[in-house]
Amino acid sequence: ELVAAVTEALGSRSLTGRCVMVTAGPTREPVDPVRYLGNRSSGKTGFAIAAAARRAGARVILVAGPVNLATPPGVERVDVQTAEEMRYAVHAWVGACDLFVGTAAVADYRPAEPAAGKVKRDGEGRTLSLVPNPDILAEVAARPKPPLTMGFAAETGDVEANARAKLASKGIDLVVANEVGEGKGFDTDDNTVTVLWEGGRRRLGPAPKTELARELVALAAARLDGTLQGG
Amino acid sequence: ELVAAVTEALGSRSLTGRCVMVTAGPTREPVDPVRYLGNRSSGKTGFAIAAAARRAGARVILVAGPVNLATPPGVERVDVQTAEEMRYAVHAWVGACDLFVGTAAVADYRPAEPAAGKVKRDGEGRTLSLVPNPDILAEVAARPKPPLTMGFAAETGDVEANARAKLASKGIDLVVANEVGEGKGFDTDDNTVTVLWEGGRRRLGPAPKTELARELVALAAARLDGTLQGG
Repeated sequence: ELVAAVTEALGSRSLTGRCVMVTAGPTREPVDPVRYLGNRSSGKTGFAIAAAARRAGARVILVAGPVNLATPPGVERVDVQTAEEMRYAVHAWVGACDLFVGTAAVADYRPAEPAAGKVKRDGEGRTLSLVPNPDILAEVAARPKPPLTMGFAAETGDVEANARAKLASKGIDLVVANEVGEGKGFDTDDNTVTVLWEGGRRRLGPAPKTELARELVALAAARLDGTLQGG
Repeated sequence: ELVAAVTEALGSRSLTGRCVMVTAGPTREPVDPVRYLGNRSSGKTGFAIAAAARRAGARVILVAGPVNLATPPGVERVDVQTAEEMRYAVHAWVGACDLFVGTAAVADYRPAEPAAGKVKRDGEGRTLSLVPNPDILAEVAARPKPPLTMGFAAETGDVEANARAKLASKGIDLVVANEVGEGKGFDTDDNTVTVLWEGGRRRLGPAPKTELARELVALAAARLDGTLQGG
């Protein structure tokens, strides 16, 4: 609490007058009334960024999937379950925002036809037909007057190459690359990330998510103000 | 707290000297390193039964999937993720138990071949091949010297008929039928259930899960003692 108070007192109010939207957490895609496809996002990164953006003076709208986290003070929160619900909430309010930070681990696929009743066990194998979900981040970047867009790339394998590909394919401004694996990435408190943009890069951490969140917000604020230097 | 203390003081120690195993919560079946098939079990029912069995004097072993619940005082807890992990934990310790209460919403199916790396979005539909999971409750009932077995049937449609079918097909002693739907069953605090056994039935509730748990434990204790009357 003391550290937070001191950080706030010393920190710049670099986002005063700005609106920031953050998506956070997983989505759940129904298979039937009791089963779903989910993913292992804790939502900690997004909640930390929402809190940091609020401390930097912004109005913050947090669109959250099912997580067990308290809403940061002063943050406006919209709770959703599925990718389609998240998409609807995002487009309803993102037009007023200067910065969009997509930390949510939106399910890439959902069951094609969720069953109305619980599917019975029959001892046989079966297949589940999946259809692609909307790419919310790419949709936001493709809006007529898009906000500055920051995405996250939770990758295995060649992390930086995959993240650079995401920067180009989604048409976003900043991508935060982190490696997923034992003790790294989602559901952990400490993290190291590389921020990539057209013509630049910066490595941040290892640091707690709260400190990384503050640095990511400061970096985005510098980009909004046109003062971000290439790495 | 006061109500709990009074209940404990007044309640019988009907399970003194007994060992009770309870499974609780959902299981998570990996699709790849970040995605999984899950289900909407909160684990509240199982944790309430574990607490009630402990208050009734039993040694209690609670095998829990991923939930956000505190371990009841005096209960021994084993945390697992997948159905296979739950199966392993159950068979490791159930031999010493007099009563097995299977409240866990074990996934009926798991992905046939979990991917080692994160599966990339490609804009196309795809299918996920699923294989049946072990039926842990039926396996316990089929052991050479099985404990008394109590299962739960979270059903939509003709609840009682489906539950009676489960009683027979799994070879268990007691089945607790509850209807899943808007405001009923999983993830709610209040509940109405029907307990079915060969030649009998009893309706319990509506009541809070903690009270239902106490009544279910008392009913199982009566059956263990040979004093349960048919409904």
